[in-house]
Amino acid sequence: MSGDQADVSARATWSALVEPGDVVAGTLVGLLGAVDALDWVRAAHRHGPDLARVEDRFGALADADRRRVAKALARWAVRLPECDPGRDLERLDRLRGTLLVPGDPRWPSALDDLGTAAPFCVWVRGEPDLGAALTLSAAVVGSRAATSYGERVAFDLADGLTADGLCVVSGGAYGIDAAAHRGAVARGGRTLVVLAGGVDRAYPAGNARLLDAVVGAGGALLSEVPPGSLPTRSRFLQRNRLIAAAGRATVVVEAAWRSGAMSTAHHAARLLRPVGAVPGPVTSMASAGCHRLLREGVAVCVTDAAEVRELAGVIGSGVVAVADAASSADERAARRRDVLDPVSQRVLDALARRVPTDLDRVASLAGVTVAEARGAVGLLELDGWAARRGDGWVVLRTDEP
Amino acid sequence: MSGDQADVSARATWSALVEPGDVVAGTLVGLLGAVDALDWVRAAHRHGPDLARVEDRFGALADADRRRVAKALARWAVRLPECDPGRDLERLDRLRGTLLVPGDPRWPSALDDLGTAAPFCVWVRGEPDLGAALTLSAAVVGSRAATSYGERVAFDLADGLTADGLCVVSGGAYGIDAAAHRGAVARGGRTLVVLAGGVDRAYPAGNARLLDAVVGAGGALLSEVPPGSLPTRSRFLQRNRLIAAAGRATVVVEAAWRSGAMSTAHHAARLLRPVGAVPGPVTSMASAGCHRLLREGVAVCVTDAAEVRELAGVIGSGVVAVADAASSADERAARRRDVLDPVSQRVLDALARRVPTDLDRVASLAGVTVAEARGAVGLLELDGWAARRGDGWVVLRTDEP
Repeated sequence: MSGDQADVSARATWSALVEPGDVVAGTLVGLLGAVDALDWVRAAHRHGPDLARVEDRFGALADADRRRVAKALARWAVRLPECDPGRDLERLDRLRGTLLVPGDPRWPSALDDLGTAAPFCVWVRGEPDLGAALTLSAAVVGSRAATSYGERVAFDLADGLTADGLCVVSGGAYGIDAAAHRGAVARGGRTLVVLAGGVDRAYPAGNARLLDAVVGAGGALLSEVPPGSLPTRSRFLQRNRLIAAAGRATVVVEAAWRSGAMSTAHHAARLLRPVGAVPGPVTSMASAGCHRLLREGVAVCVTDAAEVRELAGVIGSGVVAVADAASSADERAARRRDVLDPVSQRVLDALARRVPTDLDRVASLAGVTVAEARGAVGLLELDGWAARRGDGWVVLRTDEP
Repeated sequence: MSGDQADVSARATWSALVEPGDVVAGTLVGLLGAVDALDWVRAAHRHGPDLARVEDRFGALADADRRRVAKALARWAVRLPECDPGRDLERLDRLRGTLLVPGDPRWPSALDDLGTAAPFCVWVRGEPDLGAALTLSAAVVGSRAATSYGERVAFDLADGLTADGLCVVSGGAYGIDAAAHRGAVARGGRTLVVLAGGVDRAYPAGNARLLDAVVGAGGALLSEVPPGSLPTRSRFLQRNRLIAAAGRATVVVEAAWRSGAMSTAHHAARLLRPVGAVPGPVTSMASAGCHRLLREGVAVCVTDAAEVRELAGVIGSGVVAVADAASSADERAARRRDVLDPVSQRVLDALARRVPTDLDRVASLAGVTVAEARGAVGLLELDGWAARRGDGWVVLRTDEP
């Protein structure tokens, strides 16, 4: 086995041996490397832990750390005999999947930001070049118990984001997650499903066809545990940290007061990733978590794909320009009357549509001098706002809202 | 005429003579007092402006200021002959109204924060003690083109705020304003309608009965222009600064991208008053202004009366305590399973509902030692989460969402 092959096999083993987010394992692999750390664990299993080998290289361990290592070794010992990376990799082969490890050019380096809680490897079904896919990405997450409003917004956001080349990251659950993946694949966009169980286990089963469609559209399913692994509750919670790390920004579309999506948002905030929250009716409990994130300053308010894109640090594209143009058009329309100076506005207010008003009266009503009134009606006439009728003046248009 | 009476009469005249927010007039009245400033204007009207009298007391004026004063005098001269404070006060008497001036113990001192743009006096119909009413207050404003969602939220906010002793300030317009006033009077709460025209002019006419109900419920109508004055567009814009100043906080319920409510929010922000925005569906253009205020950091997200109350600096009341209790109950329910330590959570995940799992298998599935699994199932059994069946263990409840 080459060094690379040994590393791949060791990392596959680690991903089966320990639960996701086990920082004792992460620290050990970080110190010794995946292969040596695994050898060390196996030796410890047979002869007792050789802490000297760790301490020789990295200094004396505190007593608490010694106890943590001892406890971890006992924990890992239970599963060690069951681990069989060859079997797991064969299962992955049958799915035409790919095992990515750090150092592979396709490795999503965004996950390295998790430090000692980073995954040892990721098991991928579908497009294997996650490094490229996640260069432009945003996580779109939310409640399983979503409303039709939330699902519509998640779908539209994902549609807009993928149309603009971003990969939409989510968790494959019912509700907001599924709507986001659907919005991405609807027009052939790329999306990444981060699963809590193995990539061969469509969970929930009702989304099996959607997950196939994700792969068919050039997206991918990702898990940090081997094929065949069950999606347990603690794996769901740990999975959220991967979603947060995989997106350059995380957007919560709908979330109850406490929920998995809220935990993803907080993971993203801890990783210093920007967090967005989509507002909704205050009468909808499904939006309560989003409003909480806004109130607590964890998230900024986002209302469309262009704003999410901006949050993810993707700027200067055509989409942003189009959005700007649209709001400018809005503003231009609203401002039309505001281009008038204050005197002209007040003079315009003083004119009626039908009955002409003479200049003295205009001046008095507007609270301006007669000379100012005369000047103002002249300019207003030029621009088509007002017209002379006999000895007085009438208003032609006001553009009032 | 006593000094006080002369001041009242002069301020009533100023309020008729100049347009709201005329800072030249505000500065002059600030420098000379309302009576002397008016005398000075009358003399200037007859003999030309005696700038020396101003300069003797306050130093030389810059040329630009001389020009501004000259222009203002010309502007005021047009209306001067029409001003008749006696007639205006008689009109107010017929409405059983009250003219409040600074120094009156009932004067709403919050308006003084407007500086040179503060009103000279306020014409009030209904409860005259605005100083007392505005000690606890919040402005609730928004679009005329409101949705039923927005009107519902405005009504509920005003209901909750007045139930808690706050005076709800708004502009008497259709839509959000009217819903806020309605929510206040529905249970006899106090609300203040700040009008752009005179207090004898119900504007819009369709809200005439509502304005009567406001007065009937112990609230008030307020204007800075005399009875009989028309509500012009520039007065609507100036009126917004009074609403912003009268509320200890301003909340925007629904507002288009540019609108009067947005201007009120910005007035409040300039006065360093807290601003809140109620979120709504991102698909609703009626909420676009609120979301803009949130994105730009002008407003904080508010979703109920307790949050508005907190924004207005009213804390420690029963309402806040009730809201806290409610969210704690929510959180307690969601947290129930979270009280379990991580090992117990994972052990619980490893158990099935029907088929008992033996301890070795539990340990392997959960990734814990057999000793840890044994300890965990013992505790889980004590708390009613799990039970022994034969040689294995089953889960009784999981409290999963």
